[in-house]
Order: sequence, then C-alpha cells, then structure tokens
Amino acid sequence: MISHLNKRNMPVNVDVSSKKNTKRSASAKGIVKFSKKTFKLIESLKTKKGNIQSIAILAGIMGAKKTSDLIPLCHNILIENVEIKIRTLKNTSSLEITSLVKTNSKTGVEMEALTAVTVSCLTIYDMCKSIDKKIEITNIRLLQKSGGKSDFSAK
Amino acid sequence: MISHLNKRNMPVNVDVSSKKNTKRSASAKGIVKFSKKTFKLIESLKTKKGNIQSIAILAGIMGAKKTSDLIPLCHNILIENVEIKIRTLKNTSSLEITSLVKTNSKTGVEMEALTAVTVSCLTIYDMCKSIDKKIEITNIRLLQKSGGKSDFSAK
Amino acid sequence: MISHLNKRNMPVNVDVSSKKNTKRSASAKGIVKFSKKTFKLIESLKTKKGNIQSIAILAGIMGAKKTSDLIPLCHNILIENVEIKIRTLKNTSSLEITSLVKTNSKTGVEMEALTAVTVSCLTIYDMCKSIDKKIEITNIRLLQKSGGKSDFSAK
Amino acid sequence: MISHLNKRNMPVNVDVSSKKNTKRSASAKGIVKFSKKTFKLIESLKTKKGNIQSIAILAGIMGAKKTSDLIPLCHNILIENVEIKIRTLKNTSSLEITSLVKTNSKTGVEMEALTAVTVSCLTIYDMCKSIDKKIEITNIRLLQKSGGKSDFSAK
Amino acid sequence: MISHLNKRNMPVNVDVSSKKNTKRSASAKGIVKFSKKTFKLIESLKTKKGNIQSIAILAGIMGAKKTSDLIPLCHNILIENVEIKIRTLKNTSSLEITSLVKTNSKTGVEMEALTAVTVSCLTIYDMCKSIDKKIEITNIRLLQKSGGKSDFSAK
Amino acid sequence: MISHLNKRNMPVNVDVSSKKNTKRSASAKGIVKFSKKTFKLIESLKTKKGNIQSIAILAGIMGAKKTSDLIPLCHNILIENVEIKIRTLKNTSSLEITSLVKTNSKTGVEMEALTAVTVSCLTIYDMCKSIDKKIEITNIRLLQKSGGKSDFSAK
Repeated sequence: MISHLNKRNMPVNVDVSSKKNTKRSASAKGIVKFSKKTFKLIESLKTKKGNIQSIAILAGIMGAKKTSDLIPLCHNILIENVEIKIRTLKNTSSLEITSLVKTNSKTGVEMEALTAVTVSCLTIYDMCKSIDKKIEITNIRLLQKSGGKSDFSAK
Repeated sequence: MISHLNKRNMPVNVDVSSKKNTKRSASAKGIVKFSKKTFKLIESLKTKKGNIQSIAILAGIMGAKKTSDLIPLCHNILIENVEIKIRTLKNTSSLEITSLVKTNSKTGVEMEALTAVTVSCLTIYDMCKSIDKKIEITNIRLLQKSGGKSDFSAK
Repeated sequence: MISHLNKRNMPVNVDVSSKKNTKRSASAKGIVKFSKKTFKLIESLKTKKGNIQSIAILAGIMGAKKTSDLIPLCHNILIENVEIKIRTLKNTSSLEITSLVKTNSKTGVEMEALTAVTVSCLTIYDMCKSIDKKIEITNIRLLQKSGGKSDFSAK
Repeated sequence: MISHLNKRNMPVNVDVSSKKNTKRSASAKGIVKFSKKTFKLIESLKTKKGNIQSIAILAGIMGAKKTSDLIPLCHNILIENVEIKIRTLKNTSSLEITSLVKTNSKTGVEMEALTAVTVSCLTIYDMCKSIDKKIEITNIRLLQKSGGKSDFSAK
Repeated sequence: MISHLNKRNMPVNVDVSSKKNTKRSASAKGIVKFSKKTFKLIESLKTKKGNIQSIAILAGIMGAKKTSDLIPLCHNILIENVEIKIRTLKNTSSLEITSLVKTNSKTGVEMEALTAVTVSCLTIYDMCKSIDKKIEITNIRLLQKSGGKSDFSAK
Repeated sequence: MISHLNKRNMPVNVDVSSKKNTKRSASAKGIVKFSKKTFKLIESLKTKKGNIQSIAILAGIMGAKKTSDLIPLCHNILIENVEIKIRTLKNTSSLEITSLVKTNSKTGVEMEALTAVTVSCLTIYDMCKSIDKKIEITNIRLLQKSGGKSDFSAK
C-alpha cells in the first residue's frame, strides 16, 4: 500500500525499469500569506515586487531540478519544462504560486511540481522575513497530474 | 526595507562580514493534512508509520544542510544541530512536523528550520501520494528564533 | 586498455553517443565487520537495529543517485531502480549489504551499484562508530552485471 | 526574442517537451593567459605541467555535468561525452582549452561545452595563482554546434 | 612552487589547519561582449535588460557558494558576502561584471570571486545565445585581494 | 548508546552546539585488490599508472568535501586539509590508499577520512573495471583520530 516501504518496512525506490516513457505533467500550488501591513508594503514596492517574484520563480525552477536530491525515494528524471506563475490575492493578503512541470519519463512529476512551488514560497519568505516574522506558507497541494497510471484533477 | 534587493532592485546577498558569531536557534513547524480515510490507514500501519516518520526526519535533516543551495540569497553556515519531531494530530487527521536548528554563526537559521520542516513534509507526501492525491501541506511558519538582532516567539 | 586515459594519458569521459540504450543491471555487495562485542550489542537493540538498517538503505539509495557526481569519469544516467538489502551474518559478526541497480541506458551501472553499497556501509559505520572504532568495511565487489557488451557473474 | 523571459519579464525554463531527441554536439574554447615569466616557469615543470592539465581536464568534465545546477534556466540532460583538450600557445604565453560535448537530447549542449571550458580554465588559474596574480581567462566562445534547429560554426 | 602538486606530482589540498582566521576579500571582473546588433537589441529591451542582469547576479551569487564543489582543490569556506555589479560599456558593446566576495577564513576568496563572475557571464550568455551565437566572455581576472599573506591590487 | 537514534528510535543529528572548536584529525585507509594479471598490467603502464593515482587522489579530496551530503547524520564542517597517499603493495597485488583529514571543529573528521579513502578506491575501480571485473575494495578502516573526547590509534 505504501509503495515506498517493503514487507520488512525498509525504504524502497520503486522499480520503474519495465515501464514505458510517457508524456507526463503535474501542476501544484501554494500560498504565501502575509499580514495586511506587510502585504500593503510589498504591493507598494512596485519594481521591487517584480524582482521578488522573479527571484522566487528562478529559485523554484532550480529547486525542481533538485527534487531527486531532496526527496530520498524520488527517481532522477529529465525535466522538460518548469513553469511557475505568481498571482496576487488581495483579499487574503497573499501570493499564490502555481507550477507546471513536464517530462517524458517512466515516473510522474508530482514531487517536482510540489518542490518547485515550495522552494518558490520559501524564497519569498526569505526575502520578506526581515519585515514580517509571521509569514505563513500554506495550501501546498497537487492541482493536476496527467500521464502514467491515472490522471488527477483537484476539481 | 527588503534587505535582499538593493537600490537598483538587484538581488543582494547581505554582507554579514562585520557581525560576530553568536549562538542562534530557530524553530519552525508545518502540517501534513490527510483525508480521514488515509489518516486512519496510516495510523493502522503501526511499524510502517514509524518508518515513514523516520525517513521524513532523515530527509528533513539532510534538507536543512542544503538550505543555502536551495534559497538563493541564504549564506552557507555551519549547522550544529537539527532536531525534527513528528506528532500525530488525530482531530485534524494530520501530522505536525516541528524542527529546531542551532548554529553559532553571523546569521540566523530561520530558513534552515523552515527548509527542514518543508522537506520533511514533502517526503511524507511522497510516501503517501500513491494512496491519496489530496494531501495538503499547510501552516508552515516560524515558531521561535533566538540570537541575532532580535528574538521572536510565535506567541 | 585503460579506457579512461587517452594516448596523452589525459582523463577521458568515454564517448557513448553512438551506443544504443539497453536494459542494464548491476549488483554489488559489501561487508561491515564489527567486533563480537559490538555485534552482540547491536543485535540486542531490536528496533534500533531495524532503524540503523533503514537509514543505511536510504543513504545508499541517495548515494547511488550521486554516483556521477562522486566518480569523476562516470556519466550521469537515469537510474530506474535501486534495491538494497542488509543481511546479518552471525558467524562473522557482520552485516552484508547487497545492492541491485537498474537502468535503460548507454552505459552500465556497476559504479552505481558499488556506490550504493559503499554509502550504506559508511552510514552504518557512522551510526556505530561511537561504540566501536575498529569497525571494518570490506569485501566490496561486483556480484553481477547484465546488459552492455558482456554479462558478468561473480560465480 | 529573449526566450528565457516571458511577456511579464519573468524567468522562463523553455518548454522542450514536444521536441524530439536528436544527436547534438557543441564545441567551445577558452584561453588562459599568463605573464611570459609564469608561462616559462610552467613550461619548465615538465611532469607537473602534465598534471596541471590532467586536473584541469578532470575538473572540466565534472563541471560539464553540473551545468544545469549552475546556469539557472538550463535543462538537466544526459551528457554522452565530454572531451577536453589543452594546447600550448607559446607565442601568446597561453594555454588554449577546447571542449566537445555530445548528447542525444531535446536541447543543445552549448552551455555544457562552455561550462566545461570555463571550469577547466578556472582550475588552471587556481593551480597557478600562487605564482601569478595577473592570469587572465579570455576568449571563451562557442566554436561549433550541430543538431537542433540550426548548426553553427565559428568560421 | 605549484602549491597544488606535491613532490610526486600528485594533487594537494593545501593544509591551512595551522593558519588563523583573518578577514579577507577578493574582487574579480569579466566582460561579456556582444555584436553591435545584439547589444543594441538588448539595450532596447528596457525592463527585460534589468531582468537579465538580475538573473545573472543571482546565478553568480549561487555560483560563488559552489566554488569548492567546482574547483577540485579549493577549500569549502564560509562566504560572508557576495556582491555582483553589472555595468554597460556602450563603446565596446559589452557588459562588465564585477564581484566582491568577503570571508573570515584561513584561506582567500579569489576563486570564489572569479567563479561568481564567471557564472554570471555564462548566465548572460545563456539568456542571449538564441539571438547571437558569437557572444564572447573575456577579460576574467582578479582586481583585488586583501587579507592573507599578501594584498594585491590590479593597478 | 547509538547516538544517532533517540528514545523513540528516530534519527538524530547530534547537538554539538555547546562544544568548543578544537583541532582534530583523522586518518583512514583502504585497499584495492587486483588479480595478479591486472596488477602486473597496471604496473607496466608507467605514466598511466601515475595518472590513475592522480585522478583517484583528486576524487578522494572532492569526495571528502561531500561527506555531510552523503552520510545523512554528519554535520557539515570546514575541512582544512585532505591528504591522500597511494602505495603499491606488490605482494598482494594491491594499492593501499591512506587519507589524513584535518579540521578545527566541534565534531570529528573520521567520516571525512573514510569517505575520502572510499571515493578514491571507487575511482580506481572505475578506471580499471574494463580490464578486470573482480577487483575488490577491502580493509576500509580508521587508522587514527585525535582531538575531541578521546584519541584513537589502530595500533
């Protein structure tokens, strides 16, 4: 049931050697939530705001490439695209980060999509932590996956 | 205000060369939230559950050591302790991960504590994703920091 | 003869670009040898013993993924499975680690199998070194390889 | 026009998922220029000179494998050959480093060839910097690429 | 004379264990030279130009942190500041990248400063290579070092 | 007793934050054992033999710097010297690799010394595996450590 543990409960790197390469994609999202005060401040920093987002996106793209190095039982795969978008959610004083990762591989890219989002969120946190220590990273979840045994869509 | 961007809005690696090494620690937490069904299933897997937690803790410890490689503007520092604990929250079908990171350094370890927690959460996600695609990682935030310019405690 | 050195004795990364991807596997083993006293102690630590093995297996799996980063002239390849097993050899107060690595690639996975075993052995060493400074890692060798120019089996 | 920035000027990891794998190669070069005095000294160190070159070649091969880790928007790909040669240019008191990188991939290896050359140059610099602080690394450029949309040859 | 090779011409990681930590800095520079046409084009891309520079600076900062991983005989040290600046040189259709790296360490940061500059240059190259295949990276050299046995200034 | 597991048997990164930096060193060794035929062949390859050793030493030095990345519960520390020597043992058709690692740190460098030796051994294996598939890496053990709670010498 837990594919990453065997009968003796030892860690398992799933054997994908008899699978075929197929087109696969996965999309994930996460939220960085600020206090109202911090959010307004960031909103007011026009160009700086753009650069915070640019750096966060870059970090997320690089983070996706490190997934198999960070998540012990992930396979190393060839990532063919990482797309990260950041959207401002005024009502909740938040930034919403979404990622889309594509591969042609024997295993899926859910963890790559989630790692991309997470590293982007942490990078935004890092850049804003000097002005707000109560930032929260939240709602990290899979939005969609396609390819492989089964597709999934969060709604 | 945003210490990681200069007047020209270019990325800045903060100059800590004239600071002194001081004892510093930081603690962070995060939540992995399952559906009730998945949560019950994991609860029932007694030994396996222990091993999932063991692997997640190990990944978090290793993740903390990669912080300056993941977060572009973080300094590389000597981490003197990473402690990760996992607690079962039955009411909310969740696992709560907390980290404590210590150093004797010129800069703080908030990002290391947050990265440790995050990588642990992602590793739990990875191990359980084959049985539940709606797992959510949430509530990642700083609990406490000491040392440096100012202390902080989440409450 | 030494394929990793050219006529001028300079290091060579072998050109595999005109080869075809083929299914390949390799298996290796290694021994961690304790003093009788240490061995008995570890044997008596029932659950702890399981966790030592779990951590060593995880480290070995992650180590295999770093092979091309550690061994200068190895190619980076897509590893499709790393399986590590640990067996207790009471007669010789030893743990025997075996690895099996699979790929579909233009070059073999002997070094990946050997690196997996070696990192597992070193991790066991690390976890037990506080109680025994005379632990020995020994008998690291290839058990089997298949695919590529020629198969090999240690016996 | 700048394929690595989108309409909103945010960083883009180019989507290569709908491309086909094709044979690709790229060749680059770079020059390490010494003072006459240093150059003569190195020339006189017969065996040592060979070992400096051997170490620089090895570092370049390993550097090529790290390209996607160093250059933020590069894809990770399977490198099938890295060949590095070092030639002595007496007239200009220089060493000329050339690289040739091959892959069968959806994207080219120009950056891998340039990174290989660059890391070789930096490694020669490192080994000689105690005797000359005015060494210059210069003329790093692409010599040739084949495969992909268009071929290129420097002349 | 070549401190990185011993009497038997084998590679040497210099023993710095009996040195004292001292404040050290190093500054390096490099040039990315475009064709006039490409240069004008980039100049015209106002915001995009800023983002190219921002990404290049970020890559250089991250590159500096990888120096001991790239240059085989470099020690890993604690980098306390990496500052990278990019200046437009209209007369020569070039961008000039300068770096300043600081540490409090037993060994200098020349290689860190040079690596920072080099990775920034390569990243600019990568972002502009689709519009110009004749870009040249040139004039990479040390500008200044202070701390350690001797100071150095390029003029 | 097993300092890397806590009461709940979860992995522990030992807290060294209240320790003092002290001078520490560790020395380890390992043996690469060839068939007589292979050994004679390598012996006959005069210059090539030197280059095999040079590459193995370089890989070992670089490997030592990756110890905390490979061995999950090791702390990242500042390595101040890695010295690797290779000796020919004609009687046993073997190469003997010894390492010496130094630091000024809160924790010892046994694992760094052992990792250095091991990566050197694996690199020799890699370079010779095309002519002999029965090479064995053996006798990897600690020779000496000094500094910290207690010194140790293998004899």
